[in-house]
Amino acid sequence: MSPAVPSLRWGELPEGPVVVLLDQTRLPAEEVELVCTDVPALVQAIQTLAVRGAPLLGIAGAYGIALAAARGFDAALAEARAVHAEDVEASARMAERGLELLGELLPGGGHRILTHCNTGALVSGGEGTALAVALAAHRAGELRRLWVDETRPLLQGARLTAYEAARAGMAYAVLADGAAGSLFAAGEVDAVLIGADRIAADGAVANKIGSYPLAVLARYHHVPFVVVAPTSTVDLATADGAAIEVEQRPGREVTEFSLPHRQGAGAAPGTGVAVAPLGSLAYNPAFDVTPAELVTAIVTEAGVVSPVTRERLADVCSVSRWRKSRSGNGMMAE
Amino acid sequence: MSPAVPSLRWGELPEGPVVVLLDQTRLPAEEVELVCTDVPALVQAIQTLAVRGAPLLGIAGAYGIALAAARGFDAALAEARAVHAEDVEASARMAERGLELLGELLPGGGHRILTHCNTGALVSGGEGTALAVALAAHRAGELRRLWVDETRPLLQGARLTAYEAARAGMAYAVLADGAAGSLFAAGEVDAVLIGADRIAADGAVANKIGSYPLAVLARYHHVPFVVVAPTSTVDLATADGAAIEVEQRPGREVTEFSLPHRQGAGAAPGTGVAVAPLGSLAYNPAFDVTPAELVTAIVTEAGVVSPVTRERLADVCSVSRWRKSRSGNGMMAE
Repeated sequence: MSPAVPSLRWGELPEGPVVVLLDQTRLPAEEVELVCTDVPALVQAIQTLAVRGAPLLGIAGAYGIALAAARGFDAALAEARAVHAEDVEASARMAERGLELLGELLPGGGHRILTHCNTGALVSGGEGTALAVALAAHRAGELRRLWVDETRPLLQGARLTAYEAARAGMAYAVLADGAAGSLFAAGEVDAVLIGADRIAADGAVANKIGSYPLAVLARYHHVPFVVVAPTSTVDLATADGAAIEVEQRPGREVTEFSLPHRQGAGAAPGTGVAVAPLGSLAYNPAFDVTPAELVTAIVTEAGVVSPVTRERLADVCSVSRWRKSRSGNGMMAE
Repeated sequence: MSPAVPSLRWGELPEGPVVVLLDQTRLPAEEVELVCTDVPALVQAIQTLAVRGAPLLGIAGAYGIALAAARGFDAALAEARAVHAEDVEASARMAERGLELLGELLPGGGHRILTHCNTGALVSGGEGTALAVALAAHRAGELRRLWVDETRPLLQGARLTAYEAARAGMAYAVLADGAAGSLFAAGEVDAVLIGADRIAADGAVANKIGSYPLAVLARYHHVPFVVVAPTSTVDLATADGAAIEVEQRPGREVTEFSLPHRQGAGAAPGTGVAVAPLGSLAYNPAFDVTPAELVTAIVTEAGVVSPVTRERLADVCSVSRWRKSRSGNGMMAE
């Protein structure tokens, strides 16, 4: 169950320990590793999206603690390794449960799955979340087509999901985000599978901008809209979707086009090619929030929540937290 | 009522007559004129989208006939000039009727309008269709915000609508197409205004890819979805939306990014920057089709059709055709 893409690893150099990341801003053009020797370097890698995706960010954070503790604080590294291993396991569980759910929702196989952003091995210690389910379907011979939203403005779908799908030999096609509507209207989408950056206690799902329109289209066309995310993504302290604050990102991500190799950590601001006239304002939220009533199911490593209610979501999280505390990883479980 | 942007004009050079087009593939970076001396040049300009938009294509076609007839067939040029003048007049009527409709739908002014693709002076002999209505609202002090979908894959919103909005001094902001959902959810959209490439007899509207998802979002959020198009866009010979054949455009428009100045008529295929992995398939329909039941109103120069029914649409077209035949322009009215 080793991941197809080495997105993150712990390294021990003569000079000391390091966290080595695959720089996702340079994909698919180049596979370049970023070596982080301290926490500020890791923080910068997170801010520039060189490393991204909720599960992987959790792992990166845990290794960051270990990096800060440096030599002579082995417990932090051991904990980071445990979080890493736990995510590999969670990915496998989500893939298994997600595939089973697809079988129930769509008897007969031949699934045509629409996905958004990137949710595979690049965001995980394992094989990811939503894309791990699609990959499991592919391995089981049940994936007819993976529709990949390009995911503007940063094109994580066209750059990263297509890269993973190509490596795995999946039958995929990339589309402009606005073209998803035509696929629904033509009956070419059997299910939507997406990940989540945060899930509120009421089941509202914050995910990459462009997810909510897919949820509305899926509802209008009676297509299941399935969120795949580990229970660590569920934030029971956030009461509902309205309480989720959405980051506004720089307008130049929309008004300029940055070539993939210029999106890297070293890129100066404004090095892209102007698309809109100079001085154009842009509205560029990082995420949108999909209310629970539009979500058919949330697939977690601890169980599938469907229908999505506050009570069922809390139940699944408590099962997961109980298991973790039994296995001695309680420290990260709160 | 002269257009802000000289998108097309007839020229008389010593060597003979020409059609002069503003090359829209180079906007907003450069204002370059394309001089077409014969019909094949004009056809190429249409294929590469150097000239685009249903009303302007009609005018270009009429001048093309005049160009073919060249010296010694004055009737064709006179007819082309009449079509041109008619479109200027139609633009003005649509703007007037559209502004009136906005006043009825949204009493109190301060409109926040979402638009898609480009529907202004660049597609018209006059000031366009949907954007002409937004411009009229702006002049009347009733436009609070114009939300401009960037309109992937060719970015006609970010490049062209933003260019026109900036020239007109409108308060506009550009957004990735997938971000429109968040604007609806936040109550930041009072109405959607779009153009049309073709309207079937049942009122189904073919328009730039990404229009249909806006119609579904508008319905879900109880926001008016208004189509602005001249009656010449209505094709009574096409019975319904299902009968509209949608062009599939080259996948590289999605899998590669072409810099604006490389989209021009002289650009070789594949000169863009690869975004998706080489060999990626793409789904790239030019248009989508929005069924009449999702359209609040169709604003034409001859009247507003609302609710949109086969009968009312036919009525408005017959009024328009009767007027044209009375004014001696019957030749183009069929």
